Amino acid sequence: MAWRWPTYASGMSMTYDATGVHDVALRARTASHDLALTTRAVKDEALHAMAASLLEQAPAILAANAADVARAEGNGTSANIIDRLRLTDERLAAMADGLCEVAGLADPVGEVVRGSQLANGLELRQVRVPFGVVAMIYEARPNVTADAAGICLKSGNAVLLRGSSSARSSNAAIVTALRAALESAGLPQDAVQLVPGDSHDSVKALMRARGLVDVLIPRGGAGLIRSVVEESTVPVIETGVGNCHVYVDATADLDQALAIVVNSKTHRTSVCNAAESLLVHADVADEFLPAVIDALGAHGVTIHGDEQFAEYDDVVSATEEDYGTEYLSSDISAAVVADVEEAITHIRRYSSGHTDAILCRDQATIRRFVAAVDSAAVLVNASTRFTDGGEFGFGAEIGISTQKLHARGPMGLPEMTSTKYIVVGDGHVR
Amino acid sequence: MAWRWPTYASGMSMTYDATGVHDVALRARTASHDLALTTRAVKDEALHAMAASLLEQAPAILAANAADVARAEGNGTSANIIDRLRLTDERLAAMADGLCEVAGLADPVGEVVRGSQLANGLELRQVRVPFGVVAMIYEARPNVTADAAGICLKSGNAVLLRGSSSARSSNAAIVTALRAALESAGLPQDAVQLVPGDSHDSVKALMRARGLVDVLIPRGGAGLIRSVVEESTVPVIETGVGNCHVYVDATADLDQALAIVVNSKTHRTSVCNAAESLLVHADVADEFLPAVIDALGAHGVTIHGDEQFAEYDDVVSATEEDYGTEYLSSDISAAVVADVEEAITHIRRYSSGHTDAILCRDQATIRRFVAAVDSAAVLVNASTRFTDGGEFGFGAEIGISTQKLHARGPMGLPEMTSTKYIVVGDGHVR
Repeated sequence: MAWRWPTYASGMSMTYDATGVHDVALRARTASHDLALTTRAVKDEALHAMAASLLEQAPAILAANAADVARAEGNGTSANIIDRLRLTDERLAAMADGLCEVAGLADPVGEVVRGSQLANGLELRQVRVPFGVVAMIYEARPNVTADAAGICLKSGNAVLLRGSSSARSSNAAIVTALRAALESAGLPQDAVQLVPGDSHDSVKALMRARGLVDVLIPRGGAGLIRSVVEESTVPVIETGVGNCHVYVDATADLDQALAIVVNSKTHRTSVCNAAESLLVHADVADEFLPAVIDALGAHGVTIHGDEQFAEYDDVVSATEEDYGTEYLSSDISAAVVADVEEAITHIRRYSSGHTDAILCRDQATIRRFVAAVDSAAVLVNASTRFTDGGEFGFGAEIGISTQKLHARGPMGLPEMTSTKYIVVGDGHVR
Repeated sequence: MAWRWPTYASGMSMTYDATGVHDVALRARTASHDLALTTRAVKDEALHAMAASLLEQAPAILAANAADVARAEGNGTSANIIDRLRLTDERLAAMADGLCEVAGLADPVGEVVRGSQLANGLELRQVRVPFGVVAMIYEARPNVTADAAGICLKSGNAVLLRGSSSARSSNAAIVTALRAALESAGLPQDAVQLVPGDSHDSVKALMRARGLVDVLIPRGGAGLIRSVVEESTVPVIETGVGNCHVYVDATADLDQALAIVVNSKTHRTSVCNAAESLLVHADVADEFLPAVIDALGAHGVTIHGDEQFAEYDDVVSATEEDYGTEYLSSDISAAVVADVEEAITHIRRYSSGHTDAILCRDQATIRRFVAAVDSAAVLVNASTRFTDGGEFGFGAEIGISTQKLHARGPMGLPEMTSTKYIVVGDGHVR
């Protein structure tokens, strides 16, 4: 028995898409062997070349994108999604800038995470190494194509990109530009590849490509992420579902609290770190509820509230489902809680473990909340919108992990690596 | 839609075992909330109480174990497995000592992994936190029951233990002793629980308990690990399959090489860091092959060799399958390679990514091998047997990860934790 996990290729009759995935994955593996040994200087040069190539090939990319947009409009796609799909000169320039910024970040590969000399004289080092082959499955926005390629290249990984079929022409044009740049920099073009095939079969084949693909990262809505997590035999990093809470304690500075609640909910509603649920301590409900209902109403937010909230005009009665919902819209669920313990219990039940915030001036209450709430990020007297790789100073972000294994919270370059131990002796035996 | 991943409980008609697993997992979750907030002093006291309780309850544990051993003997179980199953006063004392050793190790929980003050004044800390609920699925040896309970408790995790049915009485008696100690130390007994049900249904239910169980760690043979990895929707840490290689370069010190090959293969054959394959540079084949064939033969090792090896007496011809096999016995596959590149190519094809060693005096060749071989541990001029948490100085080991996500190589206490970000502001909004 060969030890390697049998790939799906050996165990199932292959559709066209599975064959195609198998082929690109094998080419990615070969490219990954070179990439793992590529120095930072060469990778940075390639990143700058990729940025330049995007700008040079702007006419072709924008034409391809126009075709995608026209098709989407013909399909009756919503304006919101068409906006995410659309590329402009400015957005293309931002993609190119993003690649140059990644070039400016430290190379995680080769970093010695820990090291020591053992009692018997063996030298032990734990060193960051690339994963190898990373696959991304993502939705409408074509800028993810360039972002993911840049982050994977810098972290020494070959990447397989499976964007949405609505962006297929845009993604193909972007990848063509990136691959030309890789070649000019002396790196294997197969470091960046699109997954062939438009059907769900190619996604399925990716999810079953254990042994060929090292890590699978889905970026998109809850439905996509759930299906990948449930079906994939390739290790997955779950990203981005955020049912984020803001708890306003009895001791909160209520003016500050009002500003933070409004900012958390309305600064940008379609993102995973937007607040989706508001909890208010009973002792300040009579004072805070009218103010927050007014302020959110002025921003066009619909509040789905419990009995106490629903006594006010314009508040809709919340169902059990509301408390578990990531709206990604101008809606927020809301409830009055007896104390911090009830807030913690509520959050344990409904939070997606992304970001939960407490607004509070009492040190013991803050300490209790921070210790008891088990989310990727726990914020104190700050907007939930701060859970972000850019805000945290990571420089580049591939997504925000909401799982506990490997990486949790915003993932930068170090999170895109594994480690290995190097042990050097001089004839050592046990 | 409630956000939480629906547990298997909501989505399938439950067998008895699934109901049982659901119940213990919910109790573990509740216990984990307490454990996450328990100080090191209390956890260490509990670990010492657990050690004492094992010794106090030795008569009951040994009687239960005798019943397991008698049943196994009645079933015609192999002597090898019965040896792993059998407990003695000495083995029980070693289990108790192990718990006391874990008490002596640093608490990983609360460690600040990184921290900074952001430009806007937000204070950012990334802090180690327990996973929450860890499930272990393991085979015959009942000492794993106490080891896993100790490591999980120290790292603040509640643990669900699913040992082999052949050890069910032993495991039940051990867990009874451990739970009594937890109670005496003021900790929830449900921090350590056996998974009810003897059938494979309970394993299946564990693997589908996403949202209830945070991490699943299988420890055992390749078949067990493969089935868990393929079927689990709970994140898995893969452990322990080791098809480990030793490559003897042309520049190796051949006396040293002989000792290292013999030690790697014969020091203990049933363990994952034993060598299973030998590669020898063609330039030293005429000198080294007779010596190594003699030396391994003297230790009763059967060599499954390529054509050049098979010219010697007592060498069996290797099949393609041999090179992919983790024997865990007195067998080794062997081949002559043209150079270090051919050795690397062979290892990339057949290695399980556990431990691979080069024996060599040339710095450039070592550098090439260490960079190109992507295994959890790459050893230079040392026996493969050194890939071990104890040898690495970690003090306790829950297993050796052969996956790239989260932990790779020997896993100690820090590898049994996740992290969360704590972000403290003073009214910060974006």
